[in-house]
Order: sequence, then structure tokens, then C-alpha cells
Amino acid sequence: MTLQPPDRRGRAAILKLHTAGVPLGPDVDLDDIAGNTPGLVGADLRNLVNEAALGAARKAETFVTAADFLEAIDRLLLGTERHLMLSKSDRERIAYHESGHALLGLLVAGADPVRKVTIIPHGGSLGVTVQSPIDDRFNYGEDYLRARIIGALGGRASEQLIYGVVSTGAANDLQQVTIIAHEMVVRWGMSSKIGPLAFAEDGSSGAFSAVRPYSEETAREVDLEVKRIADECFAEAMKLLTDNRSRLEALTKALLAEDSLGEDQILSVTGLQRVQVAGYEDTGL
Amino acid sequence: MTLQPPDRRGRAAILKLHTAGVPLGPDVDLDDIAGNTPGLVGADLRNLVNEAALGAARKAETFVTAADFLEAIDRLLLGTERHLMLSKSDRERIAYHESGHALLGLLVAGADPVRKVTIIPHGGSLGVTVQSPIDDRFNYGEDYLRARIIGALGGRASEQLIYGVVSTGAANDLQQVTIIAHEMVVRWGMSSKIGPLAFAEDGSSGAFSAVRPYSEETAREVDLEVKRIADECFAEAMKLLTDNRSRLEALTKALLAEDSLGEDQILSVTGLQRVQVAGYEDTGL
Amino acid sequence: MTLQPPDRRGRAAILKLHTAGVPLGPDVDLDDIAGNTPGLVGADLRNLVNEAALGAARKAETFVTAADFLEAIDRLLLGTERHLMLSKSDRERIAYHESGHALLGLLVAGADPVRKVTIIPHGGSLGVTVQSPIDDRFNYGEDYLRARIIGALGGRASEQLIYGVVSTGAANDLQQVTIIAHEMVVRWGMSSKIGPLAFAEDGSSGAFSAVRPYSEETAREVDLEVKRIADECFAEAMKLLTDNRSRLEALTKALLAEDSLGEDQILSVTGLQRVQVAGYEDTGL
Amino acid sequence: MTLQPPDRRGRAAILKLHTAGVPLGPDVDLDDIAGNTPGLVGADLRNLVNEAALGAARKAETFVTAADFLEAIDRLLLGTERHLMLSKSDRERIAYHESGHALLGLLVAGADPVRKVTIIPHGGSLGVTVQSPIDDRFNYGEDYLRARIIGALGGRASEQLIYGVVSTGAANDLQQVTIIAHEMVVRWGMSSKIGPLAFAEDGSSGAFSAVRPYSEETAREVDLEVKRIADECFAEAMKLLTDNRSRLEALTKALLAEDSLGEDQILSVTGLQRVQVAGYEDTGL
Amino acid sequence: MTLQPPDRRGRAAILKLHTAGVPLGPDVDLDDIAGNTPGLVGADLRNLVNEAALGAARKAETFVTAADFLEAIDRLLLGTERHLMLSKSDRERIAYHESGHALLGLLVAGADPVRKVTIIPHGGSLGVTVQSPIDDRFNYGEDYLRARIIGALGGRASEQLIYGVVSTGAANDLQQVTIIAHEMVVRWGMSSKIGPLAFAEDGSSGAFSAVRPYSEETAREVDLEVKRIADECFAEAMKLLTDNRSRLEALTKALLAEDSLGEDQILSVTGLQRVQVAGYEDTGL
Amino acid sequence: MTLQPPDRRGRAAILKLHTAGVPLGPDVDLDDIAGNTPGLVGADLRNLVNEAALGAARKAETFVTAADFLEAIDRLLLGTERHLMLSKSDRERIAYHESGHALLGLLVAGADPVRKVTIIPHGGSLGVTVQSPIDDRFNYGEDYLRARIIGALGGRASEQLIYGVVSTGAANDLQQVTIIAHEMVVRWGMSSKIGPLAFAEDGSSGAFSAVRPYSEETAREVDLEVKRIADECFAEAMKLLTDNRSRLEALTKALLAEDSLGEDQILSVTGLQRVQVAGYEDTGL
Repeated sequence: MTLQPPDRRGRAAILKLHTAGVPLGPDVDLDDIAGNTPGLVGADLRNLVNEAALGAARKAETFVTAADFLEAIDRLLLGTERHLMLSKSDRERIAYHESGHALLGLLVAGADPVRKVTIIPHGGSLGVTVQSPIDDRFNYGEDYLRARIIGALGGRASEQLIYGVVSTGAANDLQQVTIIAHEMVVRWGMSSKIGPLAFAEDGSSGAFSAVRPYSEETAREVDLEVKRIADECFAEAMKLLTDNRSRLEALTKALLAEDSLGEDQILSVTGLQRVQVAGYEDTGL
Repeated sequence: MTLQPPDRRGRAAILKLHTAGVPLGPDVDLDDIAGNTPGLVGADLRNLVNEAALGAARKAETFVTAADFLEAIDRLLLGTERHLMLSKSDRERIAYHESGHALLGLLVAGADPVRKVTIIPHGGSLGVTVQSPIDDRFNYGEDYLRARIIGALGGRASEQLIYGVVSTGAANDLQQVTIIAHEMVVRWGMSSKIGPLAFAEDGSSGAFSAVRPYSEETAREVDLEVKRIADECFAEAMKLLTDNRSRLEALTKALLAEDSLGEDQILSVTGLQRVQVAGYEDTGL
Repeated sequence: MTLQPPDRRGRAAILKLHTAGVPLGPDVDLDDIAGNTPGLVGADLRNLVNEAALGAARKAETFVTAADFLEAIDRLLLGTERHLMLSKSDRERIAYHESGHALLGLLVAGADPVRKVTIIPHGGSLGVTVQSPIDDRFNYGEDYLRARIIGALGGRASEQLIYGVVSTGAANDLQQVTIIAHEMVVRWGMSSKIGPLAFAEDGSSGAFSAVRPYSEETAREVDLEVKRIADECFAEAMKLLTDNRSRLEALTKALLAEDSLGEDQILSVTGLQRVQVAGYEDTGL
Repeated sequence: MTLQPPDRRGRAAILKLHTAGVPLGPDVDLDDIAGNTPGLVGADLRNLVNEAALGAARKAETFVTAADFLEAIDRLLLGTERHLMLSKSDRERIAYHESGHALLGLLVAGADPVRKVTIIPHGGSLGVTVQSPIDDRFNYGEDYLRARIIGALGGRASEQLIYGVVSTGAANDLQQVTIIAHEMVVRWGMSSKIGPLAFAEDGSSGAFSAVRPYSEETAREVDLEVKRIADECFAEAMKLLTDNRSRLEALTKALLAEDSLGEDQILSVTGLQRVQVAGYEDTGL
Repeated sequence: MTLQPPDRRGRAAILKLHTAGVPLGPDVDLDDIAGNTPGLVGADLRNLVNEAALGAARKAETFVTAADFLEAIDRLLLGTERHLMLSKSDRERIAYHESGHALLGLLVAGADPVRKVTIIPHGGSLGVTVQSPIDDRFNYGEDYLRARIIGALGGRASEQLIYGVVSTGAANDLQQVTIIAHEMVVRWGMSSKIGPLAFAEDGSSGAFSAVRPYSEETAREVDLEVKRIADECFAEAMKLLTDNRSRLEALTKALLAEDSLGEDQILSVTGLQRVQVAGYEDTGL
Repeated sequence: MTLQPPDRRGRAAILKLHTAGVPLGPDVDLDDIAGNTPGLVGADLRNLVNEAALGAARKAETFVTAADFLEAIDRLLLGTERHLMLSKSDRERIAYHESGHALLGLLVAGADPVRKVTIIPHGGSLGVTVQSPIDDRFNYGEDYLRARIIGALGGRASEQLIYGVVSTGAANDLQQVTIIAHEMVVRWGMSSKIGPLAFAEDGSSGAFSAVRPYSEETAREVDLEVKRIADECFAEAMKLLTDNRSRLEALTKALLAEDSLGEDQILSVTGLQRVQVAGYEDTGL
């Protein structure tokens, strides 16, 4: 079985390495920070330490505090906050879009918990929904991957449901969908049409490469399987949002009022619980 | 949701940056200029300031005035005016062509307002129709994109209606149509035949690239979807011009008489109102 | 609408530029020369001035005269005259070939007037037929483009009619036919099978490029449309020559007798008038 | 007949070469080590000597002992042991995955003996199953290659059987399957659909190369043959594990209890014998 | 009409240029030599002069004589004579092969006259048949091109007729056939399936290039047309040799006896006349 | 007709050149050596002289003797002898494999005589069968080429017959089969499906090149023709070995007993005569 990025202990060790020589406040617990940063690799963690130190410097603090680290984690996951003049209608559409992502993150079994949703532009995005796993994951089941795709299609599905037409704003979401579905088919053997085979292409960019190590007819089968997965997931996204339209409206309304919502607010507004992580972890023998 | 170019506030800030050290007349309001230049990015705005300063220098003015900026905006959007000897029949065909663009800009719901139309050659064009949005747009709905395509096909449709044959003069229009329709299909997920997927190619030149990250049969589906969109939009353009032929004739006649028409003149000649911007902005909840 | 090369006024200005410092005879009228050189661009006009000056130098003239310019235009359009020993049968075939080009130039509505036809080898050609427009053209209708193709196929059609078999001598003509028909289909939107779309390839060499930004099946449609246009034009060429065989024979006979014929001689031998330039220029409103 | 890597005698000679100047303990028998390292080539054996010397140095020993060599062989075959915090459910899935590999290694006629299985992460893997041949093999029969594929699919088959869904953890296994099945079809002539032909591509990476020296339709046949072999082997893997589910459970349970199991423990837990090496070696005349 | 290499007068001029400073014997008539070298270009003629001069030097002559030139022409057309030990059966097969070429050169209307045939190896060939035109040709009719193909297939057809199986010795002949037939189809518009179009590829090597500026289906049509022409010409070659088998036997017998035969001997042995040059040259009006 | 490598006289001359300055024993007859080395080219013969000289040096001889040359020829054809520890079953399979090659070399009309067969590993091979022609051949008939393919498939056929499954050991044989059959189809015009055409690719590596100068459908026809030839030859190989199984067993047994067998031993064990060289050499007129 193949191995993925560092685990919690590994991240704590990396943080210790990069904080050597950095004056840390007494409230800083590197193990805690490691627990809040699953999925991050060495370079990410070094950035995190730098960002926290810069934040402390900006506040002219003597020590880098736990709060500095939390703000740095936010900046790292969300990008830098930006101030833009947006029309009322643009803001509303963005709110529906992000609420779609967030609500599906709550409704789909197996998805990572939704930590935050915002319609304040950050980095290259007009809005952001943050999901992150509870603990380290070294292996992804087919159900988890489908949950990721359904969530990524939540913004588009929400626009389709509310406005009847989609917009250019979902382009990045669709790229993620394409990459995951393509890997499922050609790398992880999750399509019986293609079989238990792997065609090793250049990692995540494989979906956009014109070099394909199989025949045209097989390439067509791959295309159809990728489309089938995306279509099924979009239909599931539409169904879940339609069935939960009042929650979608409530979440959008709260988001327009508050700009950003944390996990507790999201759960409270929608009246939902943090999703049970479904899938193989709970499968008894 | 993905972010696009600077908003009005951003453009004002960029203008302030590039006018530092430039003596501005008392009538210059950078915020106003920012409001008149939606869609322009940093490099465009720097050009604008340079062009206005050059204009002032040519007139030996002590300050760069508001008028210098307006002329510079015109040059930037239209290109440099050129004097050419054209036959009567060439001028007439150009007038019908541009009137086709302009009239569809007025008739199609969701299109950007038509600001100006001219049959004086500018830069590399024999005639120009200028459309620009009322405020910043960060997101484009499918209806807006179709309005863009219909408008771009207006010149060809007008030639077809009046002369029965088309000419080589629409080549650039057809390239724009091809680019937008192609992006709708392979980047923005706006064809259900292709599905909610994005095939990230090199931006706007993707339509002309022979590298396609999908199978031949999918490539054929993409071709057919792109053609379907273009054909539908051309049929709509033909229908609208046929239904409004007297307006087309009136606009062409005025254009041949005046060479250039501003927004008010265009509306007055055609008896139309600035189009209601349709689409999601007006969709209530 | 897209712009093409300099107009008459532009050519006169370019000629003025390149004749600065060249001693011109009193009979030289640059505006007149500009009127005789539609379609030529800056580099061509500089060549023309150089050629005329060289001609004057060869004749040891003090000034470059109007006659020097006329001879230079001829050399520029025809290439340098060459002396070759040709068999009687080769000469005859060339005469039929060029007469085919010339006669179709007279018979097809919309074609540029035929200025000269010769069976004296020039540059890389065994014979030449010169056609040039009356005034500047900035835009080409579909009917004009078909007239160009029909004329280009006139040499081959004449050989087919007279000898029953074609020869290798039409290779360049066929290349021109292929380029124009290909542009009509993929750049100028003149095939409804392909639709109002443009696939921007590298200008005139696109027809011979193996890189095609569309699917195989669309490429096949392009091929079939290009062939359909060429076949239709060849059938039209055959029909016109068959219906005018006595004119073809008369023109060939005159050409064999005289080696070269000017516009007046061609009209007189064939009993035809300079063709009415058909198409949109004459279309009233 | 083509030749493969060094035989036992060759390896002993290579070991002798690389241990020149290395102080060896009296219990070191190079011929014995050569017998335990079938398949290793010159570079591997030099690494082995270095690893053993480093191990001795770490223990501050005067001589490199037989035990140092055995540990070095382990490290070489398994990679470096790593300590990771894994969730209970992750550990369980890994145990089922590796047990699937190991059990099929015991059940499939013709497979190499299973030497060790572990769910302690090593190098880039979360778990490892080690199989190695009894003696040198210079030639591989079709039955042996199928046994390799069935074993490689054992992890995936076990996950499918126990959890009903597969995971991303089998990616490397699927790559091995693809490489072997592809070589069978296009290099070793083991598909009658493709015939007794060899298409020499770049060794083991051929399966992932888009360059294929045959027509599209033949490429499709190759794809289908590769898939047929993989599908047949996966079905065989599923059947064997289903028929031996209690052994699979027992082996998984032991592995979860012990972390690593040697050949004797594996045989004892499963109640199986070391497989009879089937195939041509035992075929009498 | 396109122009080909220098005519007789041109070759005489080129010969004059290259013989400046070369002492020529009184019997040398450059115009005569030019008449014997149709098809040769500048570089060929310089080679010819050098070869003749070398021949004279080897004989220690004071002047380069007419005989030196004739021998040089032979060496140029045939390559250098080589002495090889050939088995009786090899010599016989070569004789039948070359006789096939030569006899078809005599039998096919429109072919260039056969000047010499030899089974003495020259340069890279085991045997040579020399054909060259009577005068310069600047244009090639379809009938002439077919005559070239039929002649090139004569060696293979003769082997097929006499031995029932063909051999590897016709490889170069087949390459010539492929090049000519391919040019007929894609450059000279001689296939109605492909139409009056030219696809400009790199001259004579086009037939072996994998870059084709048309769709797959058109490429297949090109292949089928090329094959149709070659098949038709091979059938014609077989028919002519079958109908003239006694001539083939007589020519082979003479060739085995004499090693080389000149035009007069060939005509005398076969009882044939130099072929009437058929085709357009004789077509009256 | 195309020429191949040096003939006997040419090889003798080359040997003379490379032995200049080499002290030769009185028993060395270069012409004799040339007679024993058909097919070798200049570089091969220089190697041969060097190898013989090295052999003499190793034996500290004053002269290079005829025996040194014979041993050098052996080393050159077989590669360097290697000592490997092989299992009994491996040795047996190798013996059957090589016996298959050798026996078909005796049974197939038109094959080159079998000179030696060995199961002592040499160079990169576990076993070797040496066939070489009686005299120089400059031309290869289709029947000879098929004999070469049948012989090359003899190892695989023998394994199939005896063990029922094939192995990886025939990979090089299959590559040779593929190259020869591919050349027959695309270079030597030996498939009527492809016709009397030659597609000049890079010599012997053409079969493995993905660049093919014809359409996909033609490429597929080439694939099918290559496969047809290989399949027919394999069926013939199977039939001949099945019909001569006792000879195959006898030859294998002798080979296992003796390790290597010369031509006389092979003929004696199998009770066969050196094959009559069939084909065109014996075809009377």
C-alpha cells in the first residue's frame, strides 16, 4: 500500500524543526497545531511558521502566540483577504454558490467536515468554503472521492437551482471534478469498464494532458466514464439541494448577513450535525 | 468562485499610482475615470495615463485634462483613426456590417450597452462598434455569453440579409465567436453533452490548439456543440435583423451620413431604449 | 471589419517616401503609379522603385521615366523573361493552358480584369496570365473568391478539354485553389457544414499544415467542403470553356502567333467586353 | 534464448568483489548470501554490502557479521521502517490489503514463496508483502506471470471482499499489473489476438507510453487483451479469497496482533504449505 | 504553368561555363553534349565535366575528348562499374529483372527510349536499365507518368512471371513507383477521388512523410488511389510481359551472353522499333 | 536491382587489408576465411582479425593460425561463452527451444544450413543456433524470408509443443519475426493487400517506429498482413515439429548430453540431409 504525506507526529516534528530559533509564546502547543493541519506537507508547514512570525512582527509582539498561528492557518487555507466592490446581485450569486458547497459538505456521507464559509474575496477567489479532515488520512475510498466531487459541484448546482443558468464562476470547481474523476478511472481502477489497471501519467495534471497511453477507443471509454461519474455526482448534488432548499436559503441569507460563518454557525443555521464519517472506517468485521 | 480583474476601486488605486508625478488638471476625477473603464487591467490603465499625457503634450497643455483622458479612452478602445480611400460600395458594406453589430447590441437582452459605432477605419479595422458594461462584472452567465456571440455575428448576418453573400471581412468576428463558444463547452461546463467538466487548456487560444485532452469522439462532440451554439446564435441574429430591417436601414443610412454615432444618436435613430440588463442580476429570490 | 493592405493614397505616400533622392523624369506621376498597383504592399513598392531605377541605369538615362516604371511593374508581376527552347507541342499546350486562364478571367462575373497573357517563360513559369483589380479592394465576397478559383482552374480545364489528359504543369494553380477554398471553409465561414466559425491557423499556409484544431470527423468535413468547392468550380470552368471553345481556339492561335497579348488584343480576339464586376458593389439598396 | 541477471555464482563473485577490503565476521558465507538474493544485480549487491557495513558501524562492531547482512537484505527489500500514527480503521484496511497479497502468494500455483508480510510502514509503503524465488530464474512462463498478476491484485481484491469498495491504496499494485500484462501481450507474444510478434518499446515503461508502433485498431486490441488478462486474474483473486475467507480473516487478525509475520508464521496461521512451484520445471518428458 | 530544369540551350551555357579553362579536344561539341543530357541540372553538368577531365587525366591525354565525355555520361547515369562474384542463379534473376524493365520501356507508349541495359553491377545496383528522353520535356502528361510506373514495375513483373515469387531486389523500384503515384494523386490532381487540389508537401519525399495535411479518411482515399494506380500499372506490366514472353526470353538470353546491350542491340534482339512517343505531342488540333 | 554487402572476393580484399602487418601462420588462407564469412561486412571482418590476433596472443603464439581464425569466427557468431548455474528444468527448456530452431532449419526448404547448436550461454543468450548461407546471397526471395521466420519461431513452437505454455525467452526471436514480416509487407511489396509499393522507413527499426507514412486504415492492413505472415509461419513451425517430434526429442537429448552439436552431429542425430536450397536458384528456364 502506498504512503501519503506526513502524519500528525511527522508534522509536529517538522514544526519543531522550523520553529527552532523562533520565540514562541507560552500558549503555543506544536502538537496541537500539527493536529489542526492534516494534509499539509513540509513546505506548507514552513510557510505556516513564517506567516505566524510575520503576523507577530506586524503586531510588534515579543513572542509568536497561538493566535498568530491560528490566523496564519486561516491565511494559508483561504488566501489573503481582498476588498472588492461587488454588485448586490454578484454578492448574492456568490453566497448561493458557496452555500451550495457548504451544505453538500454537511449532507454527503463521507465528506470532510466544513470548517468555514465566506463570501469575502480571498486570494484569487470571490468566496471560499473550507473543509478539512478530522484526522490524518492515508488512503481514500471511492465513497470519499465521490463526496469530494459532489461537494465541488455544489456551487454550480446551487446556481442552476436558483437561477436556472450557470456561470463562468465554477471553472475551478469543474477542473477539480475533472482531475478527481479522471484519476478514479485511470489510476485507481475505480471503473469496471477500464478494469483493474493504472496508466501512470504525470500526477494531477493527467486529466488535461493530450498524451494518453491507450487507444482512441479506450480514451473514449475513459471520457465516458469520467463524464458518467461527474453527471451522477451532479445529479446527486441537485437532488440534495432541491430536497434541502430551505436550508440552502437560510445558509445564503446568513452568509449575506454575516459575510463569514464558522462551523458552529453553519450547523446551527442549517440545523444539521457534523456528518458521520461514513465508509470503511466504520465497517465492522 | 474564481476572481477576475480589478474592480472600480482597484482601478482608481492603479490610476492614482500611475498618475503620481503627472500634473493633472483640476477637472480630472480618477474615480470617474475608473468608473468608465470596467474590464481594463493594470497595464491597460498605465497605457491610458500615458496616452492622455501624450495628448496633452501634443496640445502643449500645462495639465492633463479630463478631455485628454476621454480621448485617450477612445483611442484605447478603438485604435488609432486612419484615413483610407474606400469605394462607395465598400463603405456601404462596412456600414451595414457595423450597424448589424450595433443593432443586435441593442436588441439582445443581457448585452453590454452600445457606446459608439463608426465606419472610420481605426487601427486594423475598417469599422468599429464599442460595447462596454455598466459596472464591473466578475462572473458571466450563459445568457450573457450568448448575447456576446449573437452580437459578434451581427456584422455577418447583416451582410447575408442585405447582399445574400458574406465576405472575408467577418474573419475576426468569427474568431471571437469560436473562442467564446469553445470555452462555454470545454471550460465552463455549459454543454450537457460534455458534462460538468473542465479541460484546462491555454486560456483563450484553446479553440485554435490542436492539442485536446480527450478522445477523438469527444473532440467531435465538442466541435458539434461549438457549432450548435454558433448556428443557434446566427439564426437568432438573422431573425432579429429581419424583424428589425427598417431599423437596420435607418442606422446604416445615419452612419453613412455621419461616419460615427454615439449612444444617444444610436438610440434615437433606432427608436430603442438602452437594453435592460437581463439575467441573474435581476432575479429576485 | 478587418483591414487589408494600403489603399491608393497609402501607396502614393509610400512611393513618395522611396523615391526621395531618386531623380524622376517630368512624366512620372506617383499617384498614377499608385493607381496601377492595387494590392501591392510597402516592400513591393520599394522593389518597384529599385527596379525602375535599375532599368533607367541600364539605359544610361539621367532620369527615371514613366516608361521605366511601367516596365518595372511588368517585371514585378510577370517575373524576369527567360529564353527557352521549347518543342512545338510544348508551346501549344502552354498556349492552351494560358488561354484557358485568360478566357475564364473574361467570362466569369466578378473576376478581376485580364491585363495580359503570354507564353514567353518568365521567372519560374512557362506562361503567365495577369489579372488585377480596377480599384483597391478591402473585402472579398464569396462570389469573387469562386471567380478566382474558376480562373485558376482554367489552365487545367483547357488541357482536359483539348488533350483529354492533364499534366504536371498545373501544380501551382492547384495549390492556389487549395489555399483559397480552404480559407473559405475554415477562416471565412463560407461553408454551412462547418458553420460561422473561424479556426485561426498560420495564414495562407494553413491548407498545407497537418495541425488542425478540430476533430478528425470535422477535418474530414473540411476536406469534403474544400473538394466540393474545387469540383464545382472545375465543372464551371469546363462548361464555360466547352461553350466558348471557338474563342479558346482563337485566343490560343493568336497567342501562338504573337507570344504575348495585351488586354485590348484579348478582348478583340475573343469578341468579349471587359467583364462587368458583379457582386455586392453593384447591389442597390 | 535471452539471458537475464547474474546467477548465484555470479552474485557470489560480485559480492566477493565488493567485500574486498571489508572486514567480514567468521560467520559470513558469501555463497549463502548469494543464494538469498536471487534477482539482485550488481548495483543492488554493492548497496547490500554498504548497508551491512553501515549497520555494523552503527553497532560499533569490529566485523560485518552474517546478522548485519540479513538486516541489510531486509532493509533492501522492504525499504526503511517508518513510524506513523495510523487510525485503527486505516491499520485494519492495510492488514486486509497485505493479507490479500500474502494469501494469494500461498494459494496460486507457480507463485514465488511468501517470505514476510508486515503492516509496519516501510519507505513509501504502508505495508509490504515480500515474495522471492527459491532459485535463480532465467525465464518466465505464462503461468508464472499470471501468478504475479493475481498476487498483485490480492490487496485490492481483499478490500473489495471485506469493504465492498476499493481505495486509492492499490495504485502501485495496479501499475505492476498493467506493466506485466502489457509485456505479455506486446513483447512476449502471449496473446493469440496479437500473434507471435514483439513490438520493442522502452522496456518496463512501455505500458505507459503513448508511442505505439501499430495501428489504432491494433492498439485497441492490445488494450482489450491487457484488460482481459487483468480482469481474469482479478476474478481468480476474488474467487480464491472468497473460498479462503476464514484464512484471510485469520491472517489479518494475526497481522494486526503481530505487525509482521515471517514465512513460518504465515504458513502456520493459514494452515497452508509452501506452494508447489508448478509449471514447466516439473514437466517430465 | 510551372517551369522545370534548364533546356538544351541552358545546359550548353552551363557546360561552357564549367569548361572554361579546361583544354577541350577538337571533336568536342558542347551543344551536342547538351543534347545528350536532358534532365540534368547545373550540379550534374559540373560533375560531368569533372568526370570527363579525370578520365582524360587517367589516360594522360592532352585534351578532354568527345569520348571522355561519353564515358563520363555513362558513369554518371550508371554509377561506377563494380566486379562482384555472383552465382549463376543470381545473374539469371538479375538478367530477367533488367530485361523486364527494358522490354516494357520499348512496349509502353509514351515511355522514354531505352538507351542501355546491363547486368554488370554499377554503384549500388546489381543491374541497370537506362532510359532518357529525346528532347527536353518541361511538362509531364498523366500517360507519361503511368509509362514510368509500368517500366519501374517491369523488373518485379518479370521475376513474378518467370519464378512465381518476387524478391527483395525490387525495393528501389517500388520506392520510385510510390513517389510518382503519390505525386499524381496529391500534387498533380490526377485522381478524381481527391479532386483538382494540391497538398504541398516536401517534394519527392512526400510519399514517405507521416505528416499529411488532410483528414484520416482522406489519407485513406489517397492510399487507395496510390495503390489503385500501382496495381493497374503492375497488371499492365504483367500483361505486356506475358504477351511478349519470347521477347523477354530472347533479351534475357542476349544479356546473359553479352552482359550489356545498347539501344540498337535491344531493338534488334526484340524485333521492336523505338516506341512512338505517344501523348499530347502528337495530338493535332 | 539493389546491391548488398561485399561478396567473397570483396571480403578477401578486406581481410588482406586488415591483416597487413599481422604475422599470419602458413596455414592461413584468407580466401578460405572469406568463403566462411558470408554476410559479414567490413567492420565485422576487422573485428575478426583482431579477435584472432588476441587469441594467438593469449596462447603466446608467434603467428596467428587458421585455428585462431576459426575460434574467432565462433566467438563472433555466438558471443563470448559464459558460465551460469542453471536449474535442470531451465536447461531442458533451453534445449527444447534451441532444438526447435535447429530442426526447422533442417526441415524448411530454402533455409540456410544449420552449422551449430549449443545450450552453453553465450553473450546475452542462454542458447544459440547458428545458420549461415553456402555462398553469398545478394537477393532474397519471398520463400527464403518465410524460411527465416519459420526458423525464428522454432524455439517458441517447441516450447508450446512440449510444455503447452510459452515463456519470455522467445522475446528476441519474436522481434526478428516482426522485423522481417514488416519489411516484406511495407518495403518489398510481398503483400497483395498493400500492393507493389514501398514505404521507406528507417531500415530494420521500421517495425518498431510509430511514424507510418500511410493512413490508419492502411496501417491496420499492414498490421493484419504482418500478423497473417507470422501466424502462417508459426502454424507451419508447429506442424513440422509435431510431425517430427521424435527427431526433436532426439536432438534435445543429444544437446543435453553434449551441450553443443556441430552440423554433422545434428544431421546424424536427426537422420536428415543438409536441406536442398529451394527457390529460384534451381528454377530452370
